[in-house]
Amino acid sequence: MRIRTNVEGIDARKGLVYLDGGGSIPYDYLVMATGAEAVRLDIPGKDLEGVHVIRDLTHALKIKTHLNSGAVRKAVLIGGGYIGLEMCEALRRIGVAVKVMDILPRPAVRWDAEFTELIVEELEKNQVEFLPETRPLGIEKGKASALRMTTSNGNLDADLVLMGVGTRYNTALAQSILIRMGESGAIGVDFHQMTSVENVWAAGDCCEVFHKVAGRWVYFPLGDIANKQGRVAGQNIGGSRVEFPGIVGAQVFKVFNLEVASAGLTEEEAARYGFDPVSSLIWGHPIGKSFSRCERLGVKLVGDRNNGRLLGAQCVGEMGAVQRVSTLSIALWTGLTVEQLAYMDLPYAPPFGGVWDAIHIAARELAKKLG
Amino acid sequence: MRIRTNVEGIDARKGLVYLDGGGSIPYDYLVMATGAEAVRLDIPGKDLEGVHVIRDLTHALKIKTHLNSGAVRKAVLIGGGYIGLEMCEALRRIGVAVKVMDILPRPAVRWDAEFTELIVEELEKNQVEFLPETRPLGIEKGKASALRMTTSNGNLDADLVLMGVGTRYNTALAQSILIRMGESGAIGVDFHQMTSVENVWAAGDCCEVFHKVAGRWVYFPLGDIANKQGRVAGQNIGGSRVEFPGIVGAQVFKVFNLEVASAGLTEEEAARYGFDPVSSLIWGHPIGKSFSRCERLGVKLVGDRNNGRLLGAQCVGEMGAVQRVSTLSIALWTGLTVEQLAYMDLPYAPPFGGVWDAIHIAARELAKKLG
Repeated sequence: MRIRTNVEGIDARKGLVYLDGGGSIPYDYLVMATGAEAVRLDIPGKDLEGVHVIRDLTHALKIKTHLNSGAVRKAVLIGGGYIGLEMCEALRRIGVAVKVMDILPRPAVRWDAEFTELIVEELEKNQVEFLPETRPLGIEKGKASALRMTTSNGNLDADLVLMGVGTRYNTALAQSILIRMGESGAIGVDFHQMTSVENVWAAGDCCEVFHKVAGRWVYFPLGDIANKQGRVAGQNIGGSRVEFPGIVGAQVFKVFNLEVASAGLTEEEAARYGFDPVSSLIWGHPIGKSFSRCERLGVKLVGDRNNGRLLGAQCVGEMGAVQRVSTLSIALWTGLTVEQLAYMDLPYAPPFGGVWDAIHIAARELAKKLG
Repeated sequence: MRIRTNVEGIDARKGLVYLDGGGSIPYDYLVMATGAEAVRLDIPGKDLEGVHVIRDLTHALKIKTHLNSGAVRKAVLIGGGYIGLEMCEALRRIGVAVKVMDILPRPAVRWDAEFTELIVEELEKNQVEFLPETRPLGIEKGKASALRMTTSNGNLDADLVLMGVGTRYNTALAQSILIRMGESGAIGVDFHQMTSVENVWAAGDCCEVFHKVAGRWVYFPLGDIANKQGRVAGQNIGGSRVEFPGIVGAQVFKVFNLEVASAGLTEEEAARYGFDPVSSLIWGHPIGKSFSRCERLGVKLVGDRNNGRLLGAQCVGEMGAVQRVSTLSIALWTGLTVEQLAYMDLPYAPPFGGVWDAIHIAARELAKKLG
């Protein structure tokens, strides 16, 4: 185990890895697990003290040290994706004033507008202001606060600026030995996690994954997928013949008291990939009405007009959203039709839902539209 | 709509329903929705005041009136099935002392011993005593309490005795017109809810349902299934051609703070139906460890040694059991293998579980055993 060691180059024909500072290690099998890194926006002041990206433990420790200094009263998050939204809760809990800005009109744009409205409401309930269509222009040292941001929407004071504007795969080493990259730009692999170069495998956020609903290879850098890919690569190198059949794009994040979950394709993605999507959104109940405090659960389903199959699902609510998307993930993985879903046998008891679950009701509504 | 009207007989050739007290109604289509009734144990004293069965709203009202009289301090539940266990919570909440007796050594015997132990613990935590292997012998008027029960394990005082010892399909009318009964004894139907007699349909607790995992027609009287069957029968009578493809036996009940859920077959059922079952039980976490109060979630999976397919699942815990069984219900419905389940894409975020969900961990353990 060599930690804190950089690889300078690879000779794939000789099976050698060259280390930074000299020396090399021979290999029979090589696994590219170079991951991805957080994008740091190229704006003036991006390297000032108090400006951080969020990706790994070292970033977390830096941010924590900065927060522990006690001088942080105001934070600005650049980017309304799920990483930024998850940070809001941690910052509010220690009393930091938080604003989230995004160049788009909505946070978490993978979710449809009906649901992102709920997210903005939930942020407001927790004194987090969302600034839509706001472009960061630069950061400089401030007077009232440590930093001062200029944006397309005026200036903002901040003691802490966090950039959560996406990640980018690390593929330079893979490219240096001419491994084939996929359409997404990440490393191309097959169902065994093999790359195009003999005895070289890849797993995790540096490579693509097969999306079973889309029917194509995509870039979907999530930790649970990376774990599965790593395991499959390891099993295959160890002599087993294991396939990783792919994902359905299941994901969830928590923003204060809201579960925000989805799987499969959005309508827009489905249309882009050549499907003929139809959707339906219902507001149901996550548990039995007489047991609840009137929590609402939004379920949006997308189906394919051509064959009636389920293409995607989004669920948002204070409870029960993860449960429904977990359930619907298997429906997506196995290619169930919306009609089949409408009569699916799910565990029912009054404390846990209606005799017709929100999934049934949503599926029935969509089945009507699908004809 | 004729309510409070009994049917005395049916002439299926003429398409006539004879009413109690005279008169008849002609029909083009007839739906048998005669349901089931609670079994009342045939023991001395079974009809004494204060002895109730639990099945429908009228029973609930009678029990409630009795409780409201204020004279109920002690209750005995005969039968440790889920109906009896669900009643415990309601009775404890109004301060009634509760004992649950069963002729079997465990409550809720559809769940395996590892889980029924937890149920007994949960009952004890809530001051409910479970009396195993106890046979009710008779009930008489008491002195210390309104009633006195004699059992194979001594005598019990009670002001209220509830019998939750199962239900029995009402099939007398169906039998009178020679409808074919299934192996279970309930009305036989096809996938459209048609019976063997022309223009006569059946739905709900009076008829069988197809169990997709068992691959056979079974009697499974649950409210959500009855609702689906009723809808399918109605759609077919209305001219659509809808099939009810069947169930996987998904079920759940709540006993105080415990979610007790299952779907598919137990090992014992699987063996009885000719499968070659292998099982594995793990204790995992329902949500991310750093977000939890160390809640444990038990997941037991049963697989088929012949083809690796999932045959059944049981999940018990303070939270997350319904979510997992809901998810696994679709896996059972679609016939996934345990190996497929071990790499299934499910929505992950730290507040909602581990990067490997309890489902993955359980599936991996079982996959090892299945080889």
